[in-house]
Amino acid sequence: MRILLLNPNTTEEMTRDMERQARAYAREGTTVEGVTAAFGAPSIEGHFEEEFAIMSFLQTIRARAHEFDGVILSCYGDPGLAACREASPVPVVGIAEASMLMACTVAHKFSIVTVLPRVKPMISSAVKLHGMEERCASIRTTNLSVLDCENEPDRAVRELSEAGRLAVAEDGAEAILLGCGGMGALDERISQELDVPVIDGIVCAVKLLEGLHDYGLTTSRKAAFMAPDPDKPFADIPGLPAVSAA
Amino acid sequence: MRILLLNPNTTEEMTRDMERQARAYAREGTTVEGVTAAFGAPSIEGHFEEEFAIMSFLQTIRARAHEFDGVILSCYGDPGLAACREASPVPVVGIAEASMLMACTVAHKFSIVTVLPRVKPMISSAVKLHGMEERCASIRTTNLSVLDCENEPDRAVRELSEAGRLAVAEDGAEAILLGCGGMGALDERISQELDVPVIDGIVCAVKLLEGLHDYGLTTSRKAAFMAPDPDKPFADIPGLPAVSAA
Amino acid sequence: MRILLLNPNTTEEMTRDMERQARAYAREGTTVEGVTAAFGAPSIEGHFEEEFAIMSFLQTIRARAHEFDGVILSCYGDPGLAACREASPVPVVGIAEASMLMACTVAHKFSIVTVLPRVKPMISSAVKLHGMEERCASIRTTNLSVLDCENEPDRAVRELSEAGRLAVAEDGAEAILLGCGGMGALDERISQELDVPVIDGIVCAVKLLEGLHDYGLTTSRKAAFMAPDPDKPFADIPGLPAVSAA
Amino acid sequence: MRILLLNPNTTEEMTRDMERQARAYAREGTTVEGVTAAFGAPSIEGHFEEEFAIMSFLQTIRARAHEFDGVILSCYGDPGLAACREASPVPVVGIAEASMLMACTVAHKFSIVTVLPRVKPMISSAVKLHGMEERCASIRTTNLSVLDCENEPDRAVRELSEAGRLAVAEDGAEAILLGCGGMGALDERISQELDVPVIDGIVCAVKLLEGLHDYGLTTSRKAAFMAPDPDKPFADIPGLPAVSAA
Amino acid sequence: MRILLLNPNTTEEMTRDMERQARAYAREGTTVEGVTAAFGAPSIEGHFEEEFAIMSFLQTIRARAHEFDGVILSCYGDPGLAACREASPVPVVGIAEASMLMACTVAHKFSIVTVLPRVKPMISSAVKLHGMEERCASIRTTNLSVLDCENEPDRAVRELSEAGRLAVAEDGAEAILLGCGGMGALDERISQELDVPVIDGIVCAVKLLEGLHDYGLTTSRKAAFMAPDPDKPFADIPGLPAVSAA
Amino acid sequence: MRILLLNPNTTEEMTRDMERQARAYAREGTTVEGVTAAFGAPSIEGHFEEEFAIMSFLQTIRARAHEFDGVILSCYGDPGLAACREASPVPVVGIAEASMLMACTVAHKFSIVTVLPRVKPMISSAVKLHGMEERCASIRTTNLSVLDCENEPDRAVRELSEAGRLAVAEDGAEAILLGCGGMGALDERISQELDVPVIDGIVCAVKLLEGLHDYGLTTSRKAAFMAPDPDKPFADIPGLPAVSAA
Repeated sequence: MRILLLNPNTTEEMTRDMERQARAYAREGTTVEGVTAAFGAPSIEGHFEEEFAIMSFLQTIRARAHEFDGVILSCYGDPGLAACREASPVPVVGIAEASMLMACTVAHKFSIVTVLPRVKPMISSAVKLHGMEERCASIRTTNLSVLDCENEPDRAVRELSEAGRLAVAEDGAEAILLGCGGMGALDERISQELDVPVIDGIVCAVKLLEGLHDYGLTTSRKAAFMAPDPDKPFADIPGLPAVSAA
Repeated sequence: MRILLLNPNTTEEMTRDMERQARAYAREGTTVEGVTAAFGAPSIEGHFEEEFAIMSFLQTIRARAHEFDGVILSCYGDPGLAACREASPVPVVGIAEASMLMACTVAHKFSIVTVLPRVKPMISSAVKLHGMEERCASIRTTNLSVLDCENEPDRAVRELSEAGRLAVAEDGAEAILLGCGGMGALDERISQELDVPVIDGIVCAVKLLEGLHDYGLTTSRKAAFMAPDPDKPFADIPGLPAVSAA
Repeated sequence: MRILLLNPNTTEEMTRDMERQARAYAREGTTVEGVTAAFGAPSIEGHFEEEFAIMSFLQTIRARAHEFDGVILSCYGDPGLAACREASPVPVVGIAEASMLMACTVAHKFSIVTVLPRVKPMISSAVKLHGMEERCASIRTTNLSVLDCENEPDRAVRELSEAGRLAVAEDGAEAILLGCGGMGALDERISQELDVPVIDGIVCAVKLLEGLHDYGLTTSRKAAFMAPDPDKPFADIPGLPAVSAA
Repeated sequence: MRILLLNPNTTEEMTRDMERQARAYAREGTTVEGVTAAFGAPSIEGHFEEEFAIMSFLQTIRARAHEFDGVILSCYGDPGLAACREASPVPVVGIAEASMLMACTVAHKFSIVTVLPRVKPMISSAVKLHGMEERCASIRTTNLSVLDCENEPDRAVRELSEAGRLAVAEDGAEAILLGCGGMGALDERISQELDVPVIDGIVCAVKLLEGLHDYGLTTSRKAAFMAPDPDKPFADIPGLPAVSAA
Repeated sequence: MRILLLNPNTTEEMTRDMERQARAYAREGTTVEGVTAAFGAPSIEGHFEEEFAIMSFLQTIRARAHEFDGVILSCYGDPGLAACREASPVPVVGIAEASMLMACTVAHKFSIVTVLPRVKPMISSAVKLHGMEERCASIRTTNLSVLDCENEPDRAVRELSEAGRLAVAEDGAEAILLGCGGMGALDERISQELDVPVIDGIVCAVKLLEGLHDYGLTTSRKAAFMAPDPDKPFADIPGLPAVSAA
Repeated sequence: MRILLLNPNTTEEMTRDMERQARAYAREGTTVEGVTAAFGAPSIEGHFEEEFAIMSFLQTIRARAHEFDGVILSCYGDPGLAACREASPVPVVGIAEASMLMACTVAHKFSIVTVLPRVKPMISSAVKLHGMEERCASIRTTNLSVLDCENEPDRAVRELSEAGRLAVAEDGAEAILLGCGGMGALDERISQELDVPVIDGIVCAVKLLEGLHDYGLTTSRKAAFMAPDPDKPFADIPGLPAVSAA
C-alpha cells in the first residue's frame, strides 16, 4: 500500500526522519512518501502554528491523497484530523491517536512524554476529544523544543527518559508514548532506559493504516467526517491551489 | 469599547445581520465592526469549511485586532478559538461558549438547536472542549442549512421552535441556545413560541466582552493561550498578508 | 439597573466592603445595595452556617427582591442558589458561578484559592453542581479564616498569592479565582504578585447581571427553578416575617 | 438503638406513616421516633420548600439528636445532609442515599420513580452529589404530588408501577427506588406489579443506621462534616430556640 | 440468618481470622461459616490468581449457597461478583463494595489502603465498575504482602496507618478502608492511629446482608445478574463437582 | 507470525468459523490456530459462563501460548483479558477492544450490535473498563442467541442490520461493531445493508497483533499485567493440567 506522511512543519530534515521511521517498520509492499509543509512554522508548538499546519495538510490532501491508500498526520495532538478526514478519499490517521490506540493493547494506562510545557494543553485537548482520558495516566513535559529532539538527540533521550521514569513511578504509567512526531528515532534508546513499552506514533499509524487496508475499512461518511459538498461555491485562498470540493 | 465581529463565511449579508444583532444589544459607547471572510465557504457546515474560516479569522486578527478591545468569533462551534486567543492582543470570545456561559445563569440545563445534522459532531466537540457537557441537555438538529436561516426566516422559526419544544419536553432543557451565528435575528420570534429563555450567542459575546472590558480582564498567557514566539521564523501563506508573529 | 447584594454573614463591615467592590466596577447607572444577614454566623465556614445564610437570603429576597433587577449571593460556594432563584422574581447570580463563568473566557483552566481547609468540600460541591469540574484545575486552601481576609489584608495577600503561585506552577491554573466574598478588595494586590488573571466573583456577578439585564434574560421557570406554588399552605418560621409564596 | 426520624414537612399524618414504615422493618431493640417539621410546607416539592425543611431538621437535631443513636432525614433528595451531619453528635442518613447504597448490593443499575416533574432536578442533584450517576439508570416522574401518595394510594401504586415498568423496559433498571418519603407504605404493592426489587429509603436508612451502630462507626469529622466551631458567636433566628454550637 | 463467607485463597488460617472478624460484629442470631478455597493461591495478588479464586467461589456457591441466607466474597476487589450473583440463590456481597457503600454514610471521600502496588489496578477496576470513583479519594499501597498482614501484624499496623495518614493529609480522605480481606483484625489498632473512621469490608458485608435479610431484598434477576439457563448443556471441569445450572 | 485464537465456548464449529474469518484477512505469513474450550458452555451469554471460558483460556495459554506470537480471546466482552495477559508470554488481544480501537480510526462514534439483552451488562462493563464510553454511541441487542448467528445466518443478518440501522439513525453511530465472536462471517452481508463501516473484532485483533509484532511491542509488565510470581505455591485445579507459574 502507499502511505502519504504529512510533516506539519517546514523543516525538511524532519520530514526525512519521519519517512525513515515509518519505513523502518512498514511491511514489505508498503511505500511511504513524506511531504513537508509549504508554509507555517519550522516546528509546531502552539495552536496558532497548528492552524497553518492544518492548512498545509488540507492543501496536500486535496492535491495528492487520491494517489495513496492512507494518510498520516505526523503532528502529535492530531490537529485538523476531522477536517482532513472530510477532505481525503482515503483513511487518515493521526499519530497521537495511533499511539494511544496501539498502547491500549499492551498497557492499561499510558503516559505521554513531550516537549515544552506550552504544548500540554494541545495534547490534553487531543486526549479529551479522542475520549482517551481514562487510559492516559499523565502528560509530562520537558525543556526540549521540537527542534531540540532533532538536533540534540542525547539530551532528548536523557530528558524524555527521565520524564518517562517519573510517569511510571508516580503516575502509574505502564507504557510511554513519545508525544512529538520528531521523537521516533529515539524510541529504541529511550526503551533501553525504561522497563515499559516505549511507543512512537508514526510506527503505530503505519500499522493501523496497513490493518485498515487489509480489512478494507475506510472513513465513515455518516456524521463527523462527511465529505464537503462539491456543489457549494468556495473561494479558495489566493496564492494557493484550488482545494474546493467541486 | 470597540468590538471586532468575525463572520466565518463569505456571505456579506450575514455579516451585516450579525452586526445588526450585536449593535441592537450593545450598550452605549460600544461599537461593533463586522468583517466577512475573504475566502472559504458561503456558510460553515463541516470541519473542512471551518478550517478556512479559522484561517480567515487569524488573518483578520493579525491585521486588525489591535484596533479593537475585543473580538467575537461568530461561528457556532467556536473553531480556532485557542489559536485566535494566542494570536490576538485583546480578548476573544466564541459565540458558542458565550451562549453556554450566559445560559448557566438562568437555567440549569440548556439545549442547542441548530442547522443540519452534519454540524452536530462539531458542536458536540465544542461542548466537550468547553467542559459544558454536564449543563448541555441535548443538541437538536433540523433540516435547515445555514443560509436557510437567512433566506427563509419563517420556516427557520418554525423548525427551530419545534426543535426547542422537543428539547424542553423530552430532554429537560430549561433554555434554548441558537446554534448558528445567523439565527440571532430570530430570537424574539422563537421566544414567543417557547416558555423558556431563548439565547443568541452574538448578544452574549457582546455582553461578556463588555464585562471583561469593565473589569480589565484579558486572556491569560500562561498555558493554553500563550502568544506565538515572535523570534521563530515563519513562512507565510503565499498570496496572503504576512501574519508571522515577529 | 438596581442590584441587591446579599452578604451571607452578620458582619456589617463585610457588607460595606462587598458593596464598595461591586460599585467600583459597576457601570454608570447601576446601583448596588448590600444587605447584611440578620442572623447566623459572622462568617460562613461550614455547611451548618451556610444553612442560616440561605435562610437569611430567602427572607431578604422575599421581602425586597422585587425592588431590584438582579440579586447577588455573595457567598463563595453559592449556597441556596436554586432556592433563591425559585423565590426571586429577578435573576440571581452566585459569586462562585460568576467567577467561574467569567474565567472561562480568559483561561482554559482556573484554580480557586480560598480560606481554611474546611471550606474545600463546600466549594468542591459547588464546582460539581455547576458542572465546572473540567475547567477547575484545583481548589487551594490557606490558613486564613474569612475574617482574617478582612482584618489582616497583608497576610491575606501573602497567603493567597502563594496559593495562587502553586496553583499555576503545579496544577496548571491559568487564572486564579478568589474563593471568598471578602477577598475582592485584595484582587489588585494579588494580581501584582501573579502573572495570570486574578478574578473576584462579586465583580463578575455585577457584570453578568448587567449583561442579563441588557439582553432581557431572566430565570427559566421550566424545571429546576420553578417558583413556589402560591396556593400551597405554608407555615412561616415564628419570629420571622412571612415568606410564603401566596 | 434509638432512631430519630425527621419528616421534612408539616403533615403530621406523614410522620406517623414514616414511623410505621421504619418500625415495620426495624429489628428488635430499635426504637423510632418521628418528628414533624414545625414550619415550612405540608409537602416538599421544590428547593425553596427544601430550605425550610433543612432549617427544621437543624432545629430538631440541635435540640434532640443527643438523645438518639442515629438520625434519618426522610426527604428524598437528602437536602441539608452535610449541615445535619455537622450539627449532629450521631450519624445521619438520608433516605435517598440509603436507598441507592442498599440497591447497589442487589442491582447494577437502579431507577428512581417519584412525584411531579419539578422534583427531578433536586433528585438529580442528589444523585450527582452522592456520586451515584453511574448506577442510576434514570429518574422517572409521574403526575403524583407528594400528598397524592398519601391520599390516593391506589392511583399512586398504578402510576409508580407504570413508571417502574418503563424504567425496567427502556432504561435498563434492575431495581426501582421509591423517590419520596411518603411512598414506603406502597412498596409491597408496587413490588407485586414489577419483577425487580422495589426499595424504600426509610427502611434502608434504618438498616444502615443499625449497621453503623453495630460496627461503632460514626460521622467523620475530618473535612466535609466537621462540627461547627462552638466558640464562634452566632445570632440565632429570632423566635426559634437557640441552635448555636456553643 | 446464616452467612457463607468465602475466603478466596488456600490459607486456612485466614479463613479462621475472617470468620472471627465477621462473628465479632454479627448480631445475635447471625451465624457465619467460612470456607477456604480448595485450589488456587495462598493469597490473591494478581488477576491470574483472582480467576482461580472466582472458580472456587462458584464451586462453593453451587454446592452450598442454598443452605445460607447470604454470601460474602472476602476478596478485596470483588472478583467474580457478577458471576457469583448469577450462580447464587441468595444475595452475594463483596467486601470492597460493602466497605465503600458503608463508608458513604460517614464520609464524603474515602481512601483505600492496601497491600503491594501490584493490586492497585485490580482495586481500581473494582472502584470503577462499582461506579464509586467520585467518592474514592485514592488507593494507597504499601510494601505488605497479603500474608504479611497475617504474619506481621505490628508492621502491618504501622505501614497501613502511615498510608492512611497520608491519604487523609494529602488526598482528602475522611475515612480509611482496609483493602484486603485479611486486615480486619487490625482495624481497631489502626483506628487508634488515625482520627477518621477505619472500615473493614467483612464487617460491612455482614451488616449489609443482615439489612437485606431484614428487608427481604434479594438479587435482581432482570439484567446483569440473570441466573444461568438451566436447560443449556454445560461441560463441567473434569475433576470438579458438577456446577451446571440444570 | 503465529496466532492462537481461543474460542470461549465448547462449540467446535464456531472455532472453525472463527479460524476461517481470521485467516481470510490475515496477511501472508500469518498462521492462525483455533482452540475450542475444553469445558464450559456451548455459547457464552452470562457472567457465570464467562468464568468457565476464562478458565479455559488460562489453561490453553499456560499450555500453549509460548508456541505463538500472539493470542486472540474471541469472546466479545473480553472476559479475563487482564488475567490472560498476566499468564501469557506473548501479547493478548480481546475482540471487543480490538473492534473498538480499530473503529476509532474510521468513526468518531460507534455502536455495538449483539445477541440477547442479557449480554448487554457484560459488554457495557467491557466498554467501561476499556475507557471507551466516550466513543460508544450505544449497545443494541437483538433476539438472537449466539448459536442463532451460527445456525440462522439469514435471520441474523436481518436482525443485526436492523439494530445497526437504528443505531445509526437514532444513536449517532458512524460505524457498527459486531458484538459476538460468531458474527464475523456475516460482516460483508451486513455491510451491504448499511452505509457505514461494519467491523468484526476477530479481523481487528489479527491486524493489531500483526502490528504489535512488526513493531516489536509486547505486554507491559509494570502494573496491571505483571506476571504471576513463579515462586508462590499454587494448588492447581484437580483434574486439570498444572498451570502454576513456577
